[in-house]
Amino acid sequence: MAELWRFGVSLEKDLLDKFDSLSRKRSYNNRSKAIADLIRKDLIKEEWQSGKEIAGAITFIYDHHKRELMNKIVDIQHNYGDVILSTQHIHLDHDNCLEIVAVKGSSKKIQDLANKIGAIKGVKHATLGMSSTGKRIG
Amino acid sequence: MAELWRFGVSLEKDLLDKFDSLSRKRSYNNRSKAIADLIRKDLIKEEWQSGKEIAGAITFIYDHHKRELMNKIVDIQHNYGDVILSTQHIHLDHDNCLEIVAVKGSSKKIQDLANKIGAIKGVKHATLGMSSTGKRIG
Amino acid sequence: MAELWRFGVSLEKDLLDKFDSLSRKRSYNNRSKAIADLIRKDLIKEEWQSGKEIAGAITFIYDHHKRELMNKIVDIQHNYGDVILSTQHIHLDHDNCLEIVAVKGSSKKIQDLANKIGAIKGVKHATLGMSSTGKRIG
Amino acid sequence: MAELWRFGVSLEKDLLDKFDSLSRKRSYNNRSKAIADLIRKDLIKEEWQSGKEIAGAITFIYDHHKRELMNKIVDIQHNYGDVILSTQHIHLDHDNCLEIVAVKGSSKKIQDLANKIGAIKGVKHATLGMSSTGKRIG
Repeated sequence: MAELWRFGVSLEKDLLDKFDSLSRKRSYNNRSKAIADLIRKDLIKEEWQSGKEIAGAITFIYDHHKRELMNKIVDIQHNYGDVILSTQHIHLDHDNCLEIVAVKGSSKKIQDLANKIGAIKGVKHATLGMSSTGKRIG
Repeated sequence: MAELWRFGVSLEKDLLDKFDSLSRKRSYNNRSKAIADLIRKDLIKEEWQSGKEIAGAITFIYDHHKRELMNKIVDIQHNYGDVILSTQHIHLDHDNCLEIVAVKGSSKKIQDLANKIGAIKGVKHATLGMSSTGKRIG
Repeated sequence: MAELWRFGVSLEKDLLDKFDSLSRKRSYNNRSKAIADLIRKDLIKEEWQSGKEIAGAITFIYDHHKRELMNKIVDIQHNYGDVILSTQHIHLDHDNCLEIVAVKGSSKKIQDLANKIGAIKGVKHATLGMSSTGKRIG
Repeated sequence: MAELWRFGVSLEKDLLDKFDSLSRKRSYNNRSKAIADLIRKDLIKEEWQSGKEIAGAITFIYDHHKRELMNKIVDIQHNYGDVILSTQHIHLDHDNCLEIVAVKGSSKKIQDLANKIGAIKGVKHATLGMSSTGKRIG
């Protein structure tokens, strides 16, 4: 269990009111948690830019009718087996599939994998949700 | 199967060379596909901003030792059952779990869900990977 | 002068250390200021999305050799006179000009203006730096 | 004058219709220009990430009543004289000033400068509008 640290912060009253109001809108009921989350989001951006070990999700959609597409997707995923944790697959409609690949590893390698998937013919869109292994963010 | 349309584009030679080179770096071997993907990325941003029906993934990490946390996560997910498609869960290490929720529905409702999950005590980071249902992007 | 408010925040020690270290890297020597700035950045994003009155800068580059280009840029700027505060113009090299337009007004109107400038033939890139009028952020 | 190159692109008709419609909304009347601009935006993102020489604008707001603030801003700008091209200054209201600094140089150094300005006490927000020298984007 992580050790908690308590310290004082000075803010303009007006700024604090605005922040509290936005935090309530986002369902926070604890100001320290709202501040901690802003800080973590900032640290995670830094983790990704500096090439540290990160975790996240590659989400992509494709038309499963395209020939050879499924094979290519599987082939690429096998080449990146060391960063892929698991995969979930959803049938969006008659044509479109949504596939979400949970990943952990170097941000560079994971970016490469997302690029390679996005470049496959028949894949309409690939995006990378950047999160963290949780180790360096408290 | 979608109908293909062929048309001419005029670009400065230098710009085209730069684009081809960046596309190769990203593993594209087809210029039309690289251009189509830029266009789709742009359309998907618009889908999200205009509140249309979208699909995507909410990725979050949490410390499963925190009391009551798992119950809260499940409670919230039940309240948003109509936009949640499926969930995958990964044990990152002794403390940290990564959970990825596949979602489809209005971008506003999905943003709300991501906010609510992020605000739970013990959730360290929640992020929303924005993709598409694939219907309005060719 | 804005009234200062002092309150306590509880963070995991590890998270606080990471944040202090990143803040030092960014030249902060005051933790309250670093936290206030994260909060302001967050509020400003919200101001822009909700269409409030904002301030910022439209930056664009163009090749001044293109015929009619300068006239079109001036024409458009005159149509948006109520949101344009001032303009600075820089000769980057023999071909390229950089122009920066300071703007204040509704985020929608300013986005429209940036789009219109970007769409002019000869303008290579237009981007919108989103800041604030300073009124709602403490 | 840059040499123009004409080539064919194949897109699904539906995708092309959507793109044409979005482009019209953004005031484009030329499809090649709309595609060229997407490509340039993409190349510029790459320029910034890879540390090349770039151009842009640092926009910041501050309360000019804060003591010593103006001196600090000028001091820092003098230390970065080799990347600063010019500055415009706007009085937003009784308290708030908007200052926009046109910059050209390495993306790392310019990011440092933006950080240093943002960290000054009394500066409420600093943001970096990333554009290009125009040299590597056609």
